[in-house]
Amino acid sequence: MKRIFDPVHGFIELYPAEARLLDLPVMQRLRRLRQLGLAYLAFPAAEHSRFTHAVGALAMGTRVFDTITREDAGVLSSRDVDYQRRLVRAALLLHDVGHGPFSHACESALGVRHELRTEHILAMADVRDGLDACEVDASDVLGLILGNSHSYPALREIVSGPNLDADRMDYLLRDAYFTGVVSGRYDADQLVASMRLIERDGSSVLGIDVRGVVSLESFILARYMMFASVYFHHTTRMFERVLYEVLQEMWPNPHTLDPIDEFLRWDDFRVIEHLRDAHSDAARALRDRLRIYALAAEFNASSDLADFEACQAALCERFGTENVWADEQSQVLHRLPMSADHGPTVWVKTRNQILDARAVSDLIAKLTGKAYWRKLFVTTAHVDVAQAREVCATIVGRRHVGT
Amino acid sequence: MKRIFDPVHGFIELYPAEARLLDLPVMQRLRRLRQLGLAYLAFPAAEHSRFTHAVGALAMGTRVFDTITREDAGVLSSRDVDYQRRLVRAALLLHDVGHGPFSHACESALGVRHELRTEHILAMADVRDGLDACEVDASDVLGLILGNSHSYPALREIVSGPNLDADRMDYLLRDAYFTGVVSGRYDADQLVASMRLIERDGSSVLGIDVRGVVSLESFILARYMMFASVYFHHTTRMFERVLYEVLQEMWPNPHTLDPIDEFLRWDDFRVIEHLRDAHSDAARALRDRLRIYALAAEFNASSDLADFEACQAALCERFGTENVWADEQSQVLHRLPMSADHGPTVWVKTRNQILDARAVSDLIAKLTGKAYWRKLFVTTAHVDVAQAREVCATIVGRRHVGT
Amino acid sequence: MKRIFDPVHGFIELYPAEARLLDLPVMQRLRRLRQLGLAYLAFPAAEHSRFTHAVGALAMGTRVFDTITREDAGVLSSRDVDYQRRLVRAALLLHDVGHGPFSHACESALGVRHELRTEHILAMADVRDGLDACEVDASDVLGLILGNSHSYPALREIVSGPNLDADRMDYLLRDAYFTGVVSGRYDADQLVASMRLIERDGSSVLGIDVRGVVSLESFILARYMMFASVYFHHTTRMFERVLYEVLQEMWPNPHTLDPIDEFLRWDDFRVIEHLRDAHSDAARALRDRLRIYALAAEFNASSDLADFEACQAALCERFGTENVWADEQSQVLHRLPMSADHGPTVWVKTRNQILDARAVSDLIAKLTGKAYWRKLFVTTAHVDVAQAREVCATIVGRRHVGT
Amino acid sequence: MKRIFDPVHGFIELYPAEARLLDLPVMQRLRRLRQLGLAYLAFPAAEHSRFTHAVGALAMGTRVFDTITREDAGVLSSRDVDYQRRLVRAALLLHDVGHGPFSHACESALGVRHELRTEHILAMADVRDGLDACEVDASDVLGLILGNSHSYPALREIVSGPNLDADRMDYLLRDAYFTGVVSGRYDADQLVASMRLIERDGSSVLGIDVRGVVSLESFILARYMMFASVYFHHTTRMFERVLYEVLQEMWPNPHTLDPIDEFLRWDDFRVIEHLRDAHSDAARALRDRLRIYALAAEFNASSDLADFEACQAALCERFGTENVWADEQSQVLHRLPMSADHGPTVWVKTRNQILDARAVSDLIAKLTGKAYWRKLFVTTAHVDVAQAREVCATIVGRRHVGT
Repeated sequence: MKRIFDPVHGFIELYPAEARLLDLPVMQRLRRLRQLGLAYLAFPAAEHSRFTHAVGALAMGTRVFDTITREDAGVLSSRDVDYQRRLVRAALLLHDVGHGPFSHACESALGVRHELRTEHILAMADVRDGLDACEVDASDVLGLILGNSHSYPALREIVSGPNLDADRMDYLLRDAYFTGVVSGRYDADQLVASMRLIERDGSSVLGIDVRGVVSLESFILARYMMFASVYFHHTTRMFERVLYEVLQEMWPNPHTLDPIDEFLRWDDFRVIEHLRDAHSDAARALRDRLRIYALAAEFNASSDLADFEACQAALCERFGTENVWADEQSQVLHRLPMSADHGPTVWVKTRNQILDARAVSDLIAKLTGKAYWRKLFVTTAHVDVAQAREVCATIVGRRHVGT
Repeated sequence: MKRIFDPVHGFIELYPAEARLLDLPVMQRLRRLRQLGLAYLAFPAAEHSRFTHAVGALAMGTRVFDTITREDAGVLSSRDVDYQRRLVRAALLLHDVGHGPFSHACESALGVRHELRTEHILAMADVRDGLDACEVDASDVLGLILGNSHSYPALREIVSGPNLDADRMDYLLRDAYFTGVVSGRYDADQLVASMRLIERDGSSVLGIDVRGVVSLESFILARYMMFASVYFHHTTRMFERVLYEVLQEMWPNPHTLDPIDEFLRWDDFRVIEHLRDAHSDAARALRDRLRIYALAAEFNASSDLADFEACQAALCERFGTENVWADEQSQVLHRLPMSADHGPTVWVKTRNQILDARAVSDLIAKLTGKAYWRKLFVTTAHVDVAQAREVCATIVGRRHVGT
Repeated sequence: MKRIFDPVHGFIELYPAEARLLDLPVMQRLRRLRQLGLAYLAFPAAEHSRFTHAVGALAMGTRVFDTITREDAGVLSSRDVDYQRRLVRAALLLHDVGHGPFSHACESALGVRHELRTEHILAMADVRDGLDACEVDASDVLGLILGNSHSYPALREIVSGPNLDADRMDYLLRDAYFTGVVSGRYDADQLVASMRLIERDGSSVLGIDVRGVVSLESFILARYMMFASVYFHHTTRMFERVLYEVLQEMWPNPHTLDPIDEFLRWDDFRVIEHLRDAHSDAARALRDRLRIYALAAEFNASSDLADFEACQAALCERFGTENVWADEQSQVLHRLPMSADHGPTVWVKTRNQILDARAVSDLIAKLTGKAYWRKLFVTTAHVDVAQAREVCATIVGRRHVGT
Repeated sequence: MKRIFDPVHGFIELYPAEARLLDLPVMQRLRRLRQLGLAYLAFPAAEHSRFTHAVGALAMGTRVFDTITREDAGVLSSRDVDYQRRLVRAALLLHDVGHGPFSHACESALGVRHELRTEHILAMADVRDGLDACEVDASDVLGLILGNSHSYPALREIVSGPNLDADRMDYLLRDAYFTGVVSGRYDADQLVASMRLIERDGSSVLGIDVRGVVSLESFILARYMMFASVYFHHTTRMFERVLYEVLQEMWPNPHTLDPIDEFLRWDDFRVIEHLRDAHSDAARALRDRLRIYALAAEFNASSDLADFEACQAALCERFGTENVWADEQSQVLHRLPMSADHGPTVWVKTRNQILDARAVSDLIAKLTGKAYWRKLFVTTAHVDVAQAREVCATIVGRRHVGT
């Protein structure tokens, strides 16, 4: 076994074939994609890469897998257990290989989702050989990563589920560690120990034992706190906006990166290297950390919606639509505390029932699917920022008269 | 300066007169009162005392005081600053001296609140001399601890306020550290750095700058998580119930401990020592860790109220009222996430307004003053526990039919 | 499985029979024996008990056992593995039951070593029944704890060995956590992962793989640092000296505690409770934290031996032998960094050899068995402390003239 | 004040002029120089940059400065204190700007030490303007960074001293945090609190109060452990060797980077970007993480010197000198535990003397200036690695016959 040392999980052990998978260029490239993109401009220490996250997700997913198979021994034959364990590990190692530089900004600029890239990458000869050596089927791996396979519903949730996935379980701990934001930590030990396979409508899905509800709450809260502190931080969001403009300039033809070889040549560092000789305002802003947008107001309560719209309208009227940028949660939806778009939140197994976590926990009910995060920015070149803030403050103030 | 090493705050420095205060018998006695009473029966490592908490509260309160006076320099003359700094430190050191063995259980059994004990203790000659040496007025100290003085409203909040007090700010960090429950941690550095003096109705009260709202949220969430995980843990609550019976047997006459000298002779360890020769069921249960109650059901959502009442009624009917114990949040109200009983939650200073934190944060609005924690226990000697659980599960199940 | 939450190891799982063992009075009594005795007088947060340590030692020992049996599968039959795993866990849970109040002070005062008490305790009916329920042989357990059995040499080292025992591996981490002294931490994960069974002279002993030498160094250094910072701290040592006098007064007849029932009635808290009504100088000193000794000089290098002796002689001559107390390492020998009294330090398995760790690591060679810690105290009632310090400083100074 | 959040130090506050200094291109470039160069190939999470270290060094140096000026108030006039505080902060922020890609590998390949680059960089107009805005003299800053000024001896030690410099004090904590190697932590709080100005030969130098000797020991040990675990890790050293060859190929003319503008265009990421199209063996090895060297043997005790030489000779004879690479401590001398090249180790202030730390601590005496770290590598393309290891093992084994 090869041992990798990780500050979040301690030792992580890899089988020799997995270690060789890790040495593939498509995996080594993840060292040059930062897990949090431009967040290092707000949290300087957030320089960790998707590479360490991939190994961490494998570690976390393995703990989840080992818990549910031990707790529900007999559901699977031991031969199946061995195969599925290899499968979930390989899928977690590879789950991020389809990301381009700065991930979502790249997707927006090029209009190609990372899932499609993943499909091409898993078809490459060296990756296919690597998966063969790991004794897993490449199409099973792809199915788990894309989340469109029906063969292994529980594994699919571990790899790409909306709530109890090892991806999220690792990145929360990791982002909290590297930014230093302590409130992103949660009771991971207890959450993992509570996870169970639950039979619903004839298939085995992920869920938790009722004794783990408090740890599930801590997980939801950690998601909330990291969203509020880090993922939706105004400095990061502002520079991501700038970056989006830069990428559009850099790749005027969105098909430039369609060939997977060309796509794989790009990473965060190469984009930054290219900034060196670019001359647009956006490129200069990103290179020299110039603040071409400034925050005029931010909103995060449902009751703020009317204020938000009134402020946006007032700013546009006063300074021109082209000088106002409204940033909304919809751009970072996947980071929200808890999703219930596709049915339940998380199944909870009590003494004699299977319940939705919202029925068991008031807190989870309150935080599910409800976040009203909006920020209003103005351009610093054409707007008097103090004035813009005053405009918003006056509008917001009116509502609170008498408080 | 004397230096004390503390795992939560690192070095804590004391002036010589404060160090002598610490050596007084009434302070040394705090080493024999556990901060979390019987919680060590559920979290074995929770053996920390009120003594370390007193020193930690001094450290935390000093950081708050130094921040608000630095940020709002000029509000106080430097002479006032020196006096008030000494005052808030002395008050925090002494704020828990009035507690009896196992604190609230002792108060309930004897019917005397710890505030009254504090008043008597602060009148003792050696304490008075110690405060003189610290150059603070004993009546000012008492006013802050009891929270009934109008002289120093901001200091009073630091010492005994309902939300931003250094008492709570320290004990959350400390209880999280010693139990090992990581979700009790919050962004203390950022919260302290955001604290401000705010002018309301002619006096200076504590509040926070709007940039600190996320850290305030993390603080509220930490309170929620510690309540859910630790303070309202069923094992602890059950043994506290047993302890209450033990103390009533031990002190049949509630006036036995009225003389302050007699009161001070008692601490957690002495109560446990006395258990050795007691023969009642309760005494034996506590001594030998026998579970004379068992949890039949628990509830924590507002929507559960009807279920709770139905279950309680059903259990009483089936097993007799004397075999059912309903534990409610009202017994641990002071531990709830956020209080808004006496007006606002926390004032938040924005660009041009002073708002209630509930108006700024959806999350704080949702968690304030709303917790519906209830547990139903049955006696193990007279009740078939599995049956009792079945009774409750059936009632609760009915409501969720169709989920 | 019962789960216990521990801040050092996270979750610790116990089998039902082990959990019942934990509920025995002889185990619950460990909650009233502090792991570090009086060290809380120097490090206030060091209030952790031998109870949490016993559970932690079980956790650590299980990790060691699982590593060596996995790495050297085939050495033992699987039936043996199951038995030995239960055995080492039971022995670690019970390894400290023979300690009296304040441990070594109690042993010195009464002249009975804790091993003898352990023998009597393991013969008690409820303990014997508990071990039967755990399906382990009580005499095997006793053999491991006393270290005098030849049946399971590797297990004996895990339970009571001089260097790689789980006892030490847990208490270092635990003492570092609860005192807050970070330098007591070591790379436990890597050390455990490196442990191996090594064949020497026909039996299997504990050792480490050569790739773990750095983690072994970190372990030795942690032992050194905790010794220097905590275990030999002058405040603790001084009060332990006072305590020894107190215990002699309390138990003038050393046979008072010979009956095991009487012995088990005593714990740290009961001793402190008894102090309340004692009137000797020593009792008052301990109760009211009076410093009846003061440190005149301390020495920790081998080259200091002559200075130490010269200072001791000078102080005795000047102030009288009865007013000088020389504290030496010999009283805390078991805490020293590394022992090599009984042969090698730790066996290290390289490619083709088995070497003593001293041959592989310069650092280990330098720190093994060599510590020259001495402190000179004088009585504060009869000696001018400043003068005593001057006497020593002058003697020490002479040697360094010209440095 | 601008606030930067850092996982090692928490909040770090910067004055507006310092924050602007941080935004200069020469500082932002440090985000693209990794603090530990290629160590991420052995410790994947070691991706932290010199940028976060620069801010951390400022934080650490400020704590040291504030301690020594508070403890020795009166030595400096308050006007001097203000100037020197600004000066030491600016120097620490800028102390690493002269480093090229992968630092020491770059220096070796180009033959220009980073100090010279620093001189040129501090002469740049925007840097000079930035320092003016900070109200410090650029030549004073340069003197501190280069360590060749006699004006501020204590500040010079904080910035570039051999033992108690803030540079080292920060990077140890930081490297330990980001690699996850816990044994690199030391008692920083206590070490800082013990630091003092000491008068020696008419000038004020840095030293520590004798009560801080244990924390100094912990610092020395942390240096030792990080050296053994991380800085001299064989994987890192091997790839650094490969990198050196790559850089020589990339820059055949060592003067290519002499113009400071050209030099500043280069950073770690750009070197890696250039690897993409390079075709040499070394370039491919580094790009694809191929192990073109393998470790044959390593040595770290003084007594190993003869073995090392014998092994090196045997390997060269058997496989050819061109296939053997002997890596020695001399290449990483600045990372050694404790330096005493230029006189004392660290001055220690006792009651009435100033002593060298070696006279006070056996441990420090043992570890000072004595490390015998050597590794022997062979090329994997031309050498049978197993055979090479056998050759060395046999030689080393001979000496231990009889152990």
